[in-house]
Amino acid sequence: MLEGLVLRNNTKLLLIVLDGLGGLPVKGGKTELELASTPNLDSLAKKSALGLHIPVDFGITPGSGPGHLGIFGYDPVKYQIGRGILEALGLGLEVKETDITVRGNYATAERVKGRLIIKDRRAGRIPTEENRRITQKLSEAIKEIDGVKIEVAPGMEHRVAVLLRFPYELPEGSDRIRDTDPQREGLEPIEPAGENESSERVAKVVREFLRRVEEVLKDEPKANYLLLRGFSQKPKMESFEERFGLKACAIAVYPMYRGLASLVGMEVIEPEGPGIQEEINTLKKLWHEYDFFFLHIKKTDSYGEDGNYEGKIKVIEEFDSMLPQILELKPDVLVITGDHSTPSVLRGHSWHPVPVLLYSSYVLGGTSERFVERECLKGELGMFPSVKLINLMLAHSLRLAKYGA
Amino acid sequence: MLEGLVLRNNTKLLLIVLDGLGGLPVKGGKTELELASTPNLDSLAKKSALGLHIPVDFGITPGSGPGHLGIFGYDPVKYQIGRGILEALGLGLEVKETDITVRGNYATAERVKGRLIIKDRRAGRIPTEENRRITQKLSEAIKEIDGVKIEVAPGMEHRVAVLLRFPYELPEGSDRIRDTDPQREGLEPIEPAGENESSERVAKVVREFLRRVEEVLKDEPKANYLLLRGFSQKPKMESFEERFGLKACAIAVYPMYRGLASLVGMEVIEPEGPGIQEEINTLKKLWHEYDFFFLHIKKTDSYGEDGNYEGKIKVIEEFDSMLPQILELKPDVLVITGDHSTPSVLRGHSWHPVPVLLYSSYVLGGTSERFVERECLKGELGMFPSVKLINLMLAHSLRLAKYGA
Repeated sequence: MLEGLVLRNNTKLLLIVLDGLGGLPVKGGKTELELASTPNLDSLAKKSALGLHIPVDFGITPGSGPGHLGIFGYDPVKYQIGRGILEALGLGLEVKETDITVRGNYATAERVKGRLIIKDRRAGRIPTEENRRITQKLSEAIKEIDGVKIEVAPGMEHRVAVLLRFPYELPEGSDRIRDTDPQREGLEPIEPAGENESSERVAKVVREFLRRVEEVLKDEPKANYLLLRGFSQKPKMESFEERFGLKACAIAVYPMYRGLASLVGMEVIEPEGPGIQEEINTLKKLWHEYDFFFLHIKKTDSYGEDGNYEGKIKVIEEFDSMLPQILELKPDVLVITGDHSTPSVLRGHSWHPVPVLLYSSYVLGGTSERFVERECLKGELGMFPSVKLINLMLAHSLRLAKYGA
Repeated sequence: MLEGLVLRNNTKLLLIVLDGLGGLPVKGGKTELELASTPNLDSLAKKSALGLHIPVDFGITPGSGPGHLGIFGYDPVKYQIGRGILEALGLGLEVKETDITVRGNYATAERVKGRLIIKDRRAGRIPTEENRRITQKLSEAIKEIDGVKIEVAPGMEHRVAVLLRFPYELPEGSDRIRDTDPQREGLEPIEPAGENESSERVAKVVREFLRRVEEVLKDEPKANYLLLRGFSQKPKMESFEERFGLKACAIAVYPMYRGLASLVGMEVIEPEGPGIQEEINTLKKLWHEYDFFFLHIKKTDSYGEDGNYEGKIKVIEEFDSMLPQILELKPDVLVITGDHSTPSVLRGHSWHPVPVLLYSSYVLGGTSERFVERECLKGELGMFPSVKLINLMLAHSLRLAKYGA
């Protein structure tokens, strides 16, 4: 739709994502947003365009991958981000078109009459520290196989991410490889086999990798093997700049969100520190270097997932107190929203439409009193698919030419 | 969707388009519609179904072509109206399935060692009067080439529209011909060449036409050549009557809007005079002859484009004062809307959803106090794609059968 319509100008666009922002009533019939004291958001809401966006489809609860792809303007049904990629991004690996990623579990295995039998699929849930030590050992021992670079990144307990970087761009379907995890103890791991020529070429490297893993870890008492699940490669996608004409950067504390932004080609910035104030400081420093800024705030979601509505409210209030600093930057278009809802009562992501506020010179405004779910329902943006949010941001920054004569 | 569902009955459907109707706050936080004094629209709004429609997509600003196709019930992304057609329609030419249209600029050219070099791409922006004289000369000299009828219509200054009418219906893709305008002075015009067999057949006629243009205009001091851009043909589309079972007419002062209506097969009527009252007089006279009436009022858009919000308000108020005459006709379904928004503050078309009022016996009503953007947000029609407006008009006139058993 946007092809041939995208213009460039000097406007600044700022997208602030409070992860898992939307909620449900938790106390006295009020949601987390309604219970929060947010004088700055309230006054901004009165002069902004409000609405709600639907991440994937009615009733569909998105993961973080689809949630973010949608608000970045990429149809999350068309561009699927595999588990392996998400794991790798979350552990700080960078994922390119040349890469195959996969999730791994350290496991306990034993050779019985020459057959490798899985005794414990999680290696007794070894402590994270132990994982780091073993992963370090693996990384030093296996750096490359047949010209393919190998990276292993430690996660929590027995979890790791493995990345294979080929010396060339991989054709689509190169990740169609069977999981090796037999899903039950007492069985042999499944032989990784590719479904097509290019994935079989990858599988061959994986088999050699696993042979060497067994060798390197042979003296480990628990974590002496690795099971792999969810081979994935990066879907082919136009970069954010090619698609929307925006030089973009992503400011996020958690690696996964920087990683999601890097998938669409945003430059990723690790903020000065883990707090919201430090993210804003970073934003201020970069303000003259980019057209588009994605600023990610994680804790709204974390507290929602814990069912800690008071924690979620506090993060919202903390953000509200810093909003004036953001407004001082005078963004031409400011959007404040979430990637999905995480109602504390559900202790997890949900399918509920996500509140969104769009502030620019070209809105009606005056429809709503606060930036809360029920007031967003009255807003001029209505309810719309998340993937259209970027259209609205471009339009309000006068970066879209007229369609048709 | 509507196939097999369309019924016929004796109801009268009236679609009034106030071009560029929607707006943004211009004074005291109020929009043009909100500032206008519209007692008749207000009282109609209270008992009507209100909402907003989105012409092409979220954030997309439509030209007049896509804007009107949408409210006529034709998907503006599927049916694209080329620049050449719009220019031809705007200058009063009728465009059929047998036609190729193209925009032209009179230019100053010079033969240098046998090569034709463009000296001025706009022939010094000759006055419109001069254009008329030259176009008349061309029209008299070149009426036909190889059985293809040629029409040239004068526009403003150096602009014209050229129409080639073939003796047979042209296959799709016949307009795939390179522009001849080299886009820079000092260069030769580009040879019009077709990309396929049928467009090459058209290009051959164009080459002969240009050869004769040079000959006919050789003694003109400035406008002695013609550059062509935007070859277009009418997309294949079912007629309005085939599709919706409605015998329709279009009442519009400006040729372009009559032209857009004629593309979908409406009968086009030039009103008695240029005022809204004269359009309404024409409507009254024709009231018993058609099922569906498209009445187009231009000036709301013109003033919006000029940034003259007071002018826009006056047109709205003028229309309001005449609304009782329209209601006296007792249309079974009356829709009042725009083809897109033209906020005075933007001095041009915009992407903002367009207010719509639908009056019939079968609406809820009672949702809104006035026919203004913010009150339309509360309406029972919600926010919907423009292309669905005709479904709603048919439904409210009981012209659609039940879908499925």
